[in-house]
Formats: sequence, structure tokens, C-alpha cells
Amino acid sequence: MSSVTVIGAGNVGSAVAALAAKAGAQVQVLARDLAKAQALAERVGGTAGVVGDDPAGDFVVLAVPYPALAELAATYGARFDGRILVDVTNPVDFATFDGLTVPADSSAAAELQAAVPGATVLKAFNTNFAGTVATGVTGDVPATVLVAGDADAAARLVELIQAGGLAAAVVGPLKRARELEAFGFLQMVLAAQNVIGWSGGFALRK
Amino acid sequence: MSSVTVIGAGNVGSAVAALAAKAGAQVQVLARDLAKAQALAERVGGTAGVVGDDPAGDFVVLAVPYPALAELAATYGARFDGRILVDVTNPVDFATFDGLTVPADSSAAAELQAAVPGATVLKAFNTNFAGTVATGVTGDVPATVLVAGDADAAARLVELIQAGGLAAAVVGPLKRARELEAFGFLQMVLAAQNVIGWSGGFALRK
Repeated sequence: MSSVTVIGAGNVGSAVAALAAKAGAQVQVLARDLAKAQALAERVGGTAGVVGDDPAGDFVVLAVPYPALAELAATYGARFDGRILVDVTNPVDFATFDGLTVPADSSAAAELQAAVPGATVLKAFNTNFAGTVATGVTGDVPATVLVAGDADAAARLVELIQAGGLAAAVVGPLKRARELEAFGFLQMVLAAQNVIGWSGGFALRK
Repeated sequence: MSSVTVIGAGNVGSAVAALAAKAGAQVQVLARDLAKAQALAERVGGTAGVVGDDPAGDFVVLAVPYPALAELAATYGARFDGRILVDVTNPVDFATFDGLTVPADSSAAAELQAAVPGATVLKAFNTNFAGTVATGVTGDVPATVLVAGDADAAARLVELIQAGGLAAAVVGPLKRARELEAFGFLQMVLAAQNVIGWSGGFALRK
């Protein structure tokens, strides 16, 4: 059985923790605010702790805003070695809402991988608004989680997501995180302009 | 009424010419091979010519592969002034299928705009496989054409596309072409890996 640590108890953390629990994984929730971690852990039948506690999961989902990735990498360092880190962030420049804050030929996921070379970083969930992960539906059709990174680790994450009842697809190696982040940004732009709602987005159709 | 010149009589050119005709636009088809241009023009009730002929349309859709954009810009130069050029290309590196051939902080559309400063370049149709423009359906749900560029020109194109029976949405200024090209590439990657078919893709759901 998989074990999943979710760092962050916000909308994304809540949705991913519930998905992991539904998949039958052991879930640990870590948050800065222990009460929030405990509340989420209780909802999903998991354990709780604070950021800085050792992660118990094979998968560690960093359900935090982009700027917090560097903090987590600094906090955990080699304690992330051997784990599959899941980066869900969209490094949007919120000052301008006109681009990403990472270099054009890079990605938040690539930066994270460079900061924690002993871990295996996957990009996932950044192309799904949190509400669509929670409901499994994008607008009126099934949601699909897109995953980029190491093939074996990505296949394991896809299996976990599918066991939780959501569709998932591997798009390629971690280099594809760049396109996933562009995709996630575009989707946020459309929601911010009210072209779509935050329960909608781009749905993968065969 | 709008007038549309489509340069290129391949799958994308055919689908866009049919869409424009359905919208009630006057359609001109230009291709290297006059016979192909004539065959398509006949199907859509338009006129035909060869590449290099003066474009008659207010909109000029460059339904050609990415490398041909530079050729068309060189061939037409200032003859494109005042026209709304529609760039449909995905500048994929087909040698590696592992990225785009344009600089990471640019796009094919931005390059085209720089080459023909007297025209107004829009990015559109590159996030829709040709078959989905032809049928109006992505997989099993309505297709949506995403458009980036000058707000007035983009609104005019959206109006034309909607008059042709397809959904369309403006994503923002031409700078967003970078994200649209990443999106188009990602969709091609998924089709090349048989995760989706060429009649599928990402469908925008509200």
C-alpha cells in the first residue's frame, strides 16, 4: 500500500489528501498550523504533524504556493532523499498576472529537483483546479490529472490517482513540467477573466 | 461581412476555410499547388490562387507548417500590412519531439509579428487538431478555439468562428501565444503517445 504525506492543508492539500485516502493510502498531513493539519487528518483518517516533522510517506505532496517550495527544500534537504516529491505549483507572477516567475526555459519543478537532487520530483495536479480534484469533474466531464517526471514514479502516482477514482495521464519526463506550468497558468488566466469558473478548465478527451 | 484568405490547402486550411464559409465569409484559398487550392475553393464556394497572389481577405490565415511562416513573411512583406494574420502553427522540434524550436521566452506568433510589423498577428487554432475544427467536437464535447492577440482583432476572429458554429475564447494579448504553443505541443505529445486520438484533445469546460 502507498503512503502519502501531504504538506499543506489548504484547498489543494485537502483535495489530494482525500484522494489518497480514497485510494487506500496511509495519509499524513503536515501544516504550519497543527490544528489545521489535525482537522484535515481527521477528515481523511490520517495522522497529523507540523512542517519540519519527518515525512512518513513514500509520496510527499508539496501542496503549498510556489514561493514555499524553496523553504521546504531548505527545511528538509536530504530528509527528502528517496521520496517521490509531487510539485503542484503554478509559479505565476501575481504582481502582473502576465507570466511565470521561473526562467522561460525552466519550471518550478525543475528548480525543486535541482534543490533536492536525492528526491524524485514529479509535476502533477497543477493543471487541475482544487475543486476539480475534490469532485473528480472538470465542468461537466471527468477530470484528468496530468503527470510529468520519472517514468516509474509517474506510473506509481497515476496508479494511486486512479485508485482514488480520478483519471490520470503521464505526459512525459520532468522537462514537460514547463508545458504543464504554461497550461496551468493559461487555465488560471481564463478563470480570472471569468471565461470559465474555478470548477471548470481544460478536460482531456480521447 | 468578413473576407478570409486561407494560405495552405492541407487539413488545417481545409477546416478553417470550411468554417469561414459556414460563417458567411468570402473565402479565398491560396496554395503552392493551384489545383489543390481550386479543389478546396470549390468545396467551400470560394476563389483560388497560388501563394504569392495578393491576399483578398481582411483575415489571412497562414495554414502552413511553422517553417513556412518565415517564407510567407518574406514573400508578402508589406503586402500583409493592415491585415489580420492568423498563425496556427506549433513550432515543434520534430527531430527530438522534446520541445519547441522557438526561443523559450518567445513564440512563433511573436516572431511572425516582428517580421511583419504592419500586420496584426493573432494566434489561433494551434490548440485544436484539424479534425476537431472540422467536426466542431473534441472527443465527445464541443471544441473551443483559443485566440491570443490584439483585443479588437481577436474579438473579430471570435465572432467569425462563432458564426461558423464553433466556440471560441480570447485568452489575452499575443504574449499568451507562448502558452498556447506549449499547450499545443503538449496535446501533440499526448496524441503521439496514443493517450488521446487526433480527434480528441483538451476541451474547455466552464
